Amino acid sequence: MSLELDQLNINEQFEQLIAKEDKLEIKEFLDDQNISDVAELINEYPDYEAQIIANMAIHRAASVFKILDIAQQKDIVKELPSSKTAELLNELPADDRTDFLEELPKAAIRDLIKLLDPEERKITLAMLGYPEDSVGRLMNPDYVYIYAHNTVTEVFDTIRKFGKNSETIDVIYIIDQKGELVDDIRIRDVILAAPGKRVDEIIDGRVVSLNVHDDQEHANQVFKMNNRVALPVVDDNNILLGIVTIDDMLWVANEEFSEDMQKMGGTEALNEPYLDIPLLKLFKKRVGWLVVLFIGEMLTATAMGYFQDEIAKAIVLALFVPLIISSGGNSGSQASTLIIQAMAVGEITIQDWWRVLRREITSGMLLGSVLGIIGFIRVGVWHSIFPNIYGEHWMMIGFTVGFSLIGVVLWGTLSGSMLPIFLKRLGFDPAVSSAPFVATLVDVTGLIIYFSFAYLFLQGLLL
Amino acid sequence: MSLELDQLNINEQFEQLIAKEDKLEIKEFLDDQNISDVAELINEYPDYEAQIIANMAIHRAASVFKILDIAQQKDIVKELPSSKTAELLNELPADDRTDFLEELPKAAIRDLIKLLDPEERKITLAMLGYPEDSVGRLMNPDYVYIYAHNTVTEVFDTIRKFGKNSETIDVIYIIDQKGELVDDIRIRDVILAAPGKRVDEIIDGRVVSLNVHDDQEHANQVFKMNNRVALPVVDDNNILLGIVTIDDMLWVANEEFSEDMQKMGGTEALNEPYLDIPLLKLFKKRVGWLVVLFIGEMLTATAMGYFQDEIAKAIVLALFVPLIISSGGNSGSQASTLIIQAMAVGEITIQDWWRVLRREITSGMLLGSVLGIIGFIRVGVWHSIFPNIYGEHWMMIGFTVGFSLIGVVLWGTLSGSMLPIFLKRLGFDPAVSSAPFVATLVDVTGLIIYFSFAYLFLQGLLL
Repeated sequence: MSLELDQLNINEQFEQLIAKEDKLEIKEFLDDQNISDVAELINEYPDYEAQIIANMAIHRAASVFKILDIAQQKDIVKELPSSKTAELLNELPADDRTDFLEELPKAAIRDLIKLLDPEERKITLAMLGYPEDSVGRLMNPDYVYIYAHNTVTEVFDTIRKFGKNSETIDVIYIIDQKGELVDDIRIRDVILAAPGKRVDEIIDGRVVSLNVHDDQEHANQVFKMNNRVALPVVDDNNILLGIVTIDDMLWVANEEFSEDMQKMGGTEALNEPYLDIPLLKLFKKRVGWLVVLFIGEMLTATAMGYFQDEIAKAIVLALFVPLIISSGGNSGSQASTLIIQAMAVGEITIQDWWRVLRREITSGMLLGSVLGIIGFIRVGVWHSIFPNIYGEHWMMIGFTVGFSLIGVVLWGTLSGSMLPIFLKRLGFDPAVSSAPFVATLVDVTGLIIYFSFAYLFLQGLLL
Repeated sequence: MSLELDQLNINEQFEQLIAKEDKLEIKEFLDDQNISDVAELINEYPDYEAQIIANMAIHRAASVFKILDIAQQKDIVKELPSSKTAELLNELPADDRTDFLEELPKAAIRDLIKLLDPEERKITLAMLGYPEDSVGRLMNPDYVYIYAHNTVTEVFDTIRKFGKNSETIDVIYIIDQKGELVDDIRIRDVILAAPGKRVDEIIDGRVVSLNVHDDQEHANQVFKMNNRVALPVVDDNNILLGIVTIDDMLWVANEEFSEDMQKMGGTEALNEPYLDIPLLKLFKKRVGWLVVLFIGEMLTATAMGYFQDEIAKAIVLALFVPLIISSGGNSGSQASTLIIQAMAVGEITIQDWWRVLRREITSGMLLGSVLGIIGFIRVGVWHSIFPNIYGEHWMMIGFTVGFSLIGVVLWGTLSGSMLPIFLKRLGFDPAVSSAPFVATLVDVTGLIIYFSFAYLFLQGLLL
């Protein structure tokens, strides 16, 4: 709670300074705050966002800029004079700069890249050349490298010389004359070693590296499984190109998470915060899937039309239609979510389909039986309270409902669990087998299952 | 791809060594591999999991153990002789040990804690005293601290003396005589400073810390917003208790993500990998919500019963029931997922409810109109192909379907977006307003909306 109080204090001070319009004092105040507090100020006072960035020491401005939302970043760059934008973009770490640029329209990227110094421009163009969601887009070319024959003292000299601009010095990289990655070493091991020791005496030969074309999600897994704060990035010839730091992984995880969730809810990935995305764009992201699902769902009207005569003969059948199909949809949503989630965190691979299927057959039977029994009891209880409602054949109606529920739930569970695996096999993102998608798929089949059981139990009685 | 080849090589070598049964060679081989490769070996050869752990240098065994699944960890501890278990548990970093223990039954925790050395036991008991999902459970008491009056040379001496057991030396903590946290300093700044400088000359007074009772999700946000690899943890009196490192955040994010996803799919959080959880437990996690939803959904049968006479008079009305209610469910799922996701990543707070509502009213109207128009066209087209199907009042039926769709989609969107916010306001986890939950909620209302429009358009004609 004290954090919120602090924020209130900061806000108050900021308002007083803004009222005084003393630029120097504002600058001093801003440079005195934590990066995250300044970002919070920008959230609170969007009108001053460009001013806040412009009035900070440039390396701190860059640190704040890189943790802002893309919408805020765009606004700021639009408002800043282009000399200041140039300064800011040149100061931004290469990975964060690429991250910002890739969200912009092509023309805007071109204009902004012109503002960069030749060296930074070269780096940025190279990074933008790597596929989206690849490690190449995340890497930073500023790291400290040494050679295996260096001594510990030489390593410290190198760090003092080049460490200031490096993204991290927690890990140092050893390369050979060709630029190939030999090993990495943690700064702790350098500090703990005697000054006269040579690097090749203290390295352990166990290096974990990422390929520049690796998927970012893969990088996330590698970080999780190896206790490192940074990993080296190499090309196909093992040439060291840059490093990726673990803090980027928190953002990757966050983004993956948001995209997966949104797809599972039956929307395209927004790629922008909900409250910032223009309404028309939000509509576009949603309407596509909704229309596809709606057209798929139209088959239910066709299926119902096919069973129209049966419904006319036994209106009672119509009463349970929503209950039956929604049960299939719910069990399908459960199953698909479980499998998508397990696949997303790497617990299940395509090869496991058979194990999943076996588990889901049992689960589906059990779940279906529970709902089937409750459904049958529901019919029985209502019959005993209102004897007219289902008539003399209430028990057969109960059986129809009960067995349909077993069939529909089993079918929902199976299709919900197999669909994500099948989509992945075909090379699609399993997350698109969203809850609504599975529900729609199950609805039509659910009707057929239901009316089939109705024939079985009620032919000659009501039908 | 070369990674997978490497793994094949490792597997082959391992099989040969196992066949030879030369313990020393196995130990050498294992100590030569990366931590993550050994973890992969354990995945591939579960029969040898305890042997693999037992045959490694103990600090490496601990590093492997901490990245395994809880199910594997349990198996290994069950199989290892208790002397080896004691060694392993004492070697595990305190945070990973707590993480493992908290998943076990109370009796097992008691037995294992007895195996710990007095010092480690004290730490573990203290950590287990903090609430689940609090920062206290993640922290590590092994860090390097110094005093503000120390010189840079003294800092290096301290690191050489105590750094070996510290989880990280990338950040060093400055405390005062009372043990209160004064500041933190990155090792890079120490290395770059002149040896004779005093610590208080190089610190910047900007320290970001976590409270031991803070939520882990909050910690994740703080890490994302502040460029740090470790954060200090303090109690309410600002006494430094331990540190949390950023790699733990990847696991926290992963866990939060899995839990949220599972809840949104209408399951309780599994807390175990899908393929490892016993089938009966999996069933239990799923059946609860499914039954609740089913009982809620029974109201549709009641509602349908209420409109039974209308259906008898105009069977055609029954045909569109699944289409109408599923459209409400789909739009509701979309809206609820978007809002839950935005709340999970902190883009939306409860205070934003009014902004969300305004956006969703417009979105719902737009989306509903699109589906409504398609629905009307569907009726018209079918009528022109099969003139008998809807009879002379096809246009009124089309209006009923079209306007119902607008109403149902708008209602779905509004309830889907407001429910998560409302649940959060009441102190519940918004993720439980899962797609199935919203769909169920919308189904009953959808029927009422549909039959109301039917009255409006068809009274005196078909009704």
